[in-house]
Amino acid sequence: MPGAGVVSVIPLAGLPELEESDDLGLLLHHAAERAGGLEDGDVVVVAQKAVSKVEGRIVRLADVEPSARAVELAGEDGDPRHVEVILRESREVVRARPPLVIAETRHGFVCASAGVDASNAPADGMLVLLPLDPDASARHLRERLVGLAGIDVGVVVSDSFGRAWRQGTTDVALGVAGIAPIRDLRGTSDARGRELRSTQIAIADEIAGAAELVLGKARRVPAAIVRGVEARGDGSAAELVMPRERDLFR
Amino acid sequence: MPGAGVVSVIPLAGLPELEESDDLGLLLHHAAERAGGLEDGDVVVVAQKAVSKVEGRIVRLADVEPSARAVELAGEDGDPRHVEVILRESREVVRARPPLVIAETRHGFVCASAGVDASNAPADGMLVLLPLDPDASARHLRERLVGLAGIDVGVVVSDSFGRAWRQGTTDVALGVAGIAPIRDLRGTSDARGRELRSTQIAIADEIAGAAELVLGKARRVPAAIVRGVEARGDGSAAELVMPRERDLFR
Repeated sequence: MPGAGVVSVIPLAGLPELEESDDLGLLLHHAAERAGGLEDGDVVVVAQKAVSKVEGRIVRLADVEPSARAVELAGEDGDPRHVEVILRESREVVRARPPLVIAETRHGFVCASAGVDASNAPADGMLVLLPLDPDASARHLRERLVGLAGIDVGVVVSDSFGRAWRQGTTDVALGVAGIAPIRDLRGTSDARGRELRSTQIAIADEIAGAAELVLGKARRVPAAIVRGVEARGDGSAAELVMPRERDLFR
Repeated sequence: MPGAGVVSVIPLAGLPELEESDDLGLLLHHAAERAGGLEDGDVVVVAQKAVSKVEGRIVRLADVEPSARAVELAGEDGDPRHVEVILRESREVVRARPPLVIAETRHGFVCASAGVDASNAPADGMLVLLPLDPDASARHLRERLVGLAGIDVGVVVSDSFGRAWRQGTTDVALGVAGIAPIRDLRGTSDARGRELRSTQIAIADEIAGAAELVLGKARRVPAAIVRGVEARGDGSAAELVMPRERDLFR
């Protein structure tokens, strides 16, 4: 029993290898039952890869005809077909240093390879794409979990993103349901009444990062419960995307 | 009692208003005792503001003579003296849109205002600067905590940074002691033997972000214990700074 104010991150393990059309919500519900059950206000964080698999967001490299641009961006070391899939998933290439491509996805996220990834794919020669609408994915999972458990929970679909200026990835929220992804402290003040400097906290990203600490990419723990964070709301991961006109780094 | 694999984030509350030369390690030790005590392998995350205060990293605006460049960058809405302090803390101004300044600090961190901040300062007309050497700050706190508690713990000094492309801040590690800030999975593979895409995870930043979920900027909780993450090592926060030659966003 954690004390007052404690946040707990509980791994959801034991899920099978996921396939298209699997009932991921039910599988998560069972995993949560094995972990002691969901509680009111919990946030369930699910790795994007798990969501993409059940949504059939998989491409076979053998089916891909690379464009001239893909061949160019792939350089000597990359696979032009892989780069072609990245380009199809991209609204805009933000930076390219062959074979590395940083792109803006259809959702507005800026990340390596537009989120296209060969690791943890169902088989060799396959690539996993980001969900078409991760907020909708989160909403559907939430509806299923709320229906099964009969209590209010939030859902975050997460992925590992690199950052400008810093090494290493951290997990961030691609889609949310039942939570407010930004904690807005504008108008609040410090203990002496001065306005705070950091007034908008991306708690959905911090929740995703906290979950990653137990997610273990190679160990079949595709989800976690984050318990003890008051994040309820009716938000969208679009709130986490910096509007172009405010973005100093585009 | 959390189950296997659970990560807990435990707030360290009840610290007094901090002043220069306060024994922060002792105060944290007492706060940890009130929270049930430290355990072997715990990571203690401390907000930069607390560290800076006990290290006397405070400037009075009244003592600052702004340069012509500071006047220019302050624009109509900024305080040129505040901008002057930011410039003195900066190695390089990365972006400026008056009065907003994104700068590289002496440590190599790229962040708003070079980390210079008026909120939660000891009094009006004062600014708090980042520690001169946050890794050294973390090392000193760790030595004190290990000496008092007699067990092995890690320390992270954290601050809230904005990000390129994404809205809102997340807490990241400015200084570390007794931990490896990057979990390096290069050479490891997924369940099917393919190399993983995200092979370097910035777990120190995820630990800092997880701690922020309980830190509460205005509620005098300047620190937290993160329990259950195996992060032991002998690293430095410098490992979290992207080397210039690999940085596509400078």
